[in-house]
Amino acid sequence: MDMLTLALEPESSTPLYEQLYLHIRQAIVDDTLTTGAKLPSKRKLSDFIDVSQTTVELAYAQLLAEGYIESVPRKGFYVLPQEELYVRRSDNPIKPLPQKKTYTFDVYPSQIDTTAFPFERWRRHLKQVVTEENRDLLALGSVQGDLVLRQEIATYLYHSRGVSCSPEQIIVGSGTEQLLPQLLDLLTDAKTFGIEDPGYPLTKQLFEHQNRHYVPIPVDESGLVVDRLETERIDAVYVTPAHQFPTGTILSVSRRQRLLNWALEHQTYIIEDDYDSEFRYSGKPIPSLQSMDQNERVIYLSTFSKSLMPSLRIGYMVLPPQLLNRYRERYRHFTCSVPRFEQHTLAEFMANGDFEKHLNRMRKTYRRKLEIVTAAFKPYEPTVSITGASAGLHIILSINVPHSTETLQHMAESSGIRIKAMEDYYIRPQHLHPQFLFGFAALSEAVLPIAVARLMSCWNVTKGGTSTD
Amino acid sequence: MDMLTLALEPESSTPLYEQLYLHIRQAIVDDTLTTGAKLPSKRKLSDFIDVSQTTVELAYAQLLAEGYIESVPRKGFYVLPQEELYVRRSDNPIKPLPQKKTYTFDVYPSQIDTTAFPFERWRRHLKQVVTEENRDLLALGSVQGDLVLRQEIATYLYHSRGVSCSPEQIIVGSGTEQLLPQLLDLLTDAKTFGIEDPGYPLTKQLFEHQNRHYVPIPVDESGLVVDRLETERIDAVYVTPAHQFPTGTILSVSRRQRLLNWALEHQTYIIEDDYDSEFRYSGKPIPSLQSMDQNERVIYLSTFSKSLMPSLRIGYMVLPPQLLNRYRERYRHFTCSVPRFEQHTLAEFMANGDFEKHLNRMRKTYRRKLEIVTAAFKPYEPTVSITGASAGLHIILSINVPHSTETLQHMAESSGIRIKAMEDYYIRPQHLHPQFLFGFAALSEAVLPIAVARLMSCWNVTKGGTSTD
Repeated sequence: MDMLTLALEPESSTPLYEQLYLHIRQAIVDDTLTTGAKLPSKRKLSDFIDVSQTTVELAYAQLLAEGYIESVPRKGFYVLPQEELYVRRSDNPIKPLPQKKTYTFDVYPSQIDTTAFPFERWRRHLKQVVTEENRDLLALGSVQGDLVLRQEIATYLYHSRGVSCSPEQIIVGSGTEQLLPQLLDLLTDAKTFGIEDPGYPLTKQLFEHQNRHYVPIPVDESGLVVDRLETERIDAVYVTPAHQFPTGTILSVSRRQRLLNWALEHQTYIIEDDYDSEFRYSGKPIPSLQSMDQNERVIYLSTFSKSLMPSLRIGYMVLPPQLLNRYRERYRHFTCSVPRFEQHTLAEFMANGDFEKHLNRMRKTYRRKLEIVTAAFKPYEPTVSITGASAGLHIILSINVPHSTETLQHMAESSGIRIKAMEDYYIRPQHLHPQFLFGFAALSEAVLPIAVARLMSCWNVTKGGTSTD
Repeated sequence: MDMLTLALEPESSTPLYEQLYLHIRQAIVDDTLTTGAKLPSKRKLSDFIDVSQTTVELAYAQLLAEGYIESVPRKGFYVLPQEELYVRRSDNPIKPLPQKKTYTFDVYPSQIDTTAFPFERWRRHLKQVVTEENRDLLALGSVQGDLVLRQEIATYLYHSRGVSCSPEQIIVGSGTEQLLPQLLDLLTDAKTFGIEDPGYPLTKQLFEHQNRHYVPIPVDESGLVVDRLETERIDAVYVTPAHQFPTGTILSVSRRQRLLNWALEHQTYIIEDDYDSEFRYSGKPIPSLQSMDQNERVIYLSTFSKSLMPSLRIGYMVLPPQLLNRYRERYRHFTCSVPRFEQHTLAEFMANGDFEKHLNRMRKTYRRKLEIVTAAFKPYEPTVSITGASAGLHIILSINVPHSTETLQHMAESSGIRIKAMEDYYIRPQHLHPQFLFGFAALSEAVLPIAVARLMSCWNVTKGGTSTD
């Protein structure tokens, strides 16, 4: 080591020991201090460069800890062998993300109305949860989610969906994306899953990510064509009975009966995704499939994404006893992915009746928007006809014009409208009359008729119902 | 339908239409109304039972929606066929969860000190984030986590860990449990993973859950035995270089160099888990492996579980460009599992310097506790010797008494002490001298010496270092 050039700067913000450490490290890396070289003793070095012995000690300790030198008892400190670091600069540029287009009117079906969220109430519950008295909430809670939240969910499910379950059957997680893979992992015996076609694209993707085999099962005006489960030799099925996504059909009672009998006969499971059952605008809510099941064959799955906010990332599933036992065996060392502060805030929000109030308010809000939209499309009948208008946050437009779906979509985009075609939801390509999903939740009551008019005008659909094109 | 028994109760809280619906539904289910039976016209029925036509309309609409009846245009409403629901009561009781024992002293290594969390500051940021102005946060954000948080993490990583990355390389998720499976999914080419032995049990479990093959690689006083990667034909490796869990060893600089060269040569990846690097009590922090890597071969993984709270469920990984591109392709339709309110609260907490302040405070707290614990064990040397005391939230006790690990653990439990044996972290069973992890984070400064004394007494270790047993 070139002790002569070793000039430490006492005024520097870098501590002296660190300057010394860096100096010696550099000498080792540069091979000025070669393998096996002996470092001066702490006393000698501290004398020589006029620093305290502690400074040298700290520097040597750091070099020791990182493995640059070794300490040989009663002999001293020696430089350890280094390996040359090879550099082969690879050229892997980060691909830029596709530019997000901005649209004047976004009627994609995934959105909610964010203007009516009760921020003040949510903040109040947050404030009560995030306190020194609740410091236990900093530690890990139950892997299934905290009991207080599961109790609220069980009560809610019983009253609003007829779902009969104990809180211990509930697993709280960060939505379907996180819960469905866990569930598939429990359904080890099922080799072939049936999923709805058309259906929610993420479902298909989750099955693919988990390398699980699925077969698309068609959906007609009575919902999933249950008879196909036998002919396609399906082992387990994923279904949205109350409000099929995206068609909006309700699984008829006879199909439900057949489906439940099928599951009993094959001793298998039905995954019921009840994703937006809160929003039905006429009559009573459609009962959940789970409420009809007396044989522990239905796994009930739902989320707060539509009812509260997509960004909350809280969903849950209700497991029949046999699967619950399997879950507990397989996941007992895991952790619930939902933050506990958030779990308890939601539990408070539900316990205080704020959730129910919010749902009632949103149901009114969405019903009003639905009425506005259907009224706005009315004059364009029969070129445009509407289905799926009894529930959920979107309607389906069937368009009778001499253009392809692709052309219509392109026309809408050119006019600043982001709209999703029904075709996109099919797994098996269909030759359909053009159909589109019109999500009415996010746009305001004032804007909705303007959006409808713009869409009709860009598609050259005129009132009275004939296309001018 | 037995119209004569049909008595609606106008005073009931159940709406009239629902009473009528329930009555007819029951008749269909009971087969009193058989398949193909024609229902009375709406007008006729409303006249007969003296309710408004709307009431009948609503009841029929609900029956129609659920598929109990069909409407034949210009003819009327007909009962649809029902299928009998079979019931085969299966007896699958829910297995009770093992009773959680309570311990007087819990020195498991997974815990943190919860008494010093800055609740007031956290609440303040929460209050600023959860506001009407931020209603956009109710909708979904970036799948990688919101940019504002990724920017804060990138800055923090650069300054505290020397990690050089852009915010776009960061993926925010609900901790290692959620991020590691995603990562394994990207590392499709790697057939055999090397993982540290001993190591964090969850790592092993995550590989098993994902059906990925791993080989345990031994750890010695210089950390992972890197040479074994070649002999065991490892394709990719998972390592904790700064503070090996649970041994506390630091991966020496020459091993780091060899490891990086190995990854470059095989064009593969090193997963660096930097899980508790914030807490080092002497000298400078040990540099991250990522900071030494110039060939985009290191995936950096860390979490806020130790530095803030386990129940926050926020972790992150830094992907090299090639993997980032693959991630974006594979996960572009997915959603970040961390709630956005929480992401923004943490970002504010970091931006305002609160995170750094908290870390400094906790480092002091933990250093003081470490000193108390080492001082408390001192009189029991050499029967008890301590290692791993320069970093982290636990130390390792090596016990030289004529008892097996199992016996010692049992003795501790009988005395109300929950303590984890080193043996439990080995994948390949070892015949070790008894070693235990003593987590000192959760107990108070006053309680720590009492816990140590109780442990020593239950193991019959006396001061002066000889066992009386």
